[in-house]
Amino acid sequence: MRKSIAIDMDQVLANFYKKLCATYNENFGTSFTNEEFLLTTQRDLPKEDGKKLFELINEPDFFRDLELLDLDAIEVIKELQEHYEIYIATAAMDVPGSFNAKYDWLMQYLPFLNIQNIVFCGNKAVIHTDYLIDDSPGQLRAFKGTGIMYAMPYNADVDGFERVNNWLEIREYFMGMLVK
Amino acid sequence: MRKSIAIDMDQVLANFYKKLCATYNENFGTSFTNEEFLLTTQRDLPKEDGKKLFELINEPDFFRDLELLDLDAIEVIKELQEHYEIYIATAAMDVPGSFNAKYDWLMQYLPFLNIQNIVFCGNKAVIHTDYLIDDSPGQLRAFKGTGIMYAMPYNADVDGFERVNNWLEIREYFMGMLVK
Repeated sequence: MRKSIAIDMDQVLANFYKKLCATYNENFGTSFTNEEFLLTTQRDLPKEDGKKLFELINEPDFFRDLELLDLDAIEVIKELQEHYEIYIATAAMDVPGSFNAKYDWLMQYLPFLNIQNIVFCGNKAVIHTDYLIDDSPGQLRAFKGTGIMYAMPYNADVDGFERVNNWLEIREYFMGMLVK
Repeated sequence: MRKSIAIDMDQVLANFYKKLCATYNENFGTSFTNEEFLLTTQRDLPKEDGKKLFELINEPDFFRDLELLDLDAIEVIKELQEHYEIYIATAAMDVPGSFNAKYDWLMQYLPFLNIQNIVFCGNKAVIHTDYLIDDSPGQLRAFKGTGIMYAMPYNADVDGFERVNNWLEIREYFMGMLVK
């Protein structure tokens, strides 16, 4: 039986933080660079700003025009799909306004995906696949299969997971495994 | 560690077929009773009617005002939540127009639910819980834990799963298990 891989969306497939940073700068008169913002989570912002920022993210179209994080992702997923059962698992319940935009984004970038394999969830403890590629240490710890950490500045200090820096490394990891 | 239970929405929590039947009669000049309609799946309808019916179901508000299937469901879930990790797992990807209405329905009827435990999916092979309560033989077969069949006329001939007829039976099944 083919092994299965669940793939997170934000900061693995889609460049969430780039738009988040631009939205923040635009609304709060700041001038963070993307690199700075990647280390400034919402939790570190003043409470009122965090609340307003959430409202902006929860707008129905916020997630619609996120850029691809890594241009290689599409071709790698297409290739992996020939050997693995590919699922997309995104914690959309945190941002319920995002459902339609996230769905449309997936239809646009991964039209070859089996829509039965899309999962909008919260806690990824509920995901039953062999692997999960995610940038969130909390989600990777909750997950019961093998977690693969997509490297981001905010998870640089977290040990215990295989790390990948880009989609070519994901390709290498999973295609290499087939040979073994 | 607490055992976990995933609960399907349509025809387990929400009375989907009642509204489907009313919508059908209203749009196609028929006069099916609910009982007749429960044995007339969309697949048996003429192709054009099935397509139009899907469009009606996929309207953003179709799922918003579904009635509770069994008035006991809420209290039973509240009680089970004290002993089990409760997830809601609904195959929303089949009807992407339903996301917001389904979410709002859950917030209305199960406000005590942990929103991190809501899952909009397709194939329930991806659900990692100990139990799944579902009316769909296909989903129960795909699921890798213990499937509990919520009895409906269209699954009456399906063997291989524990069957429950209503929410008091669900209560009995799971609360009884705690004593063992």
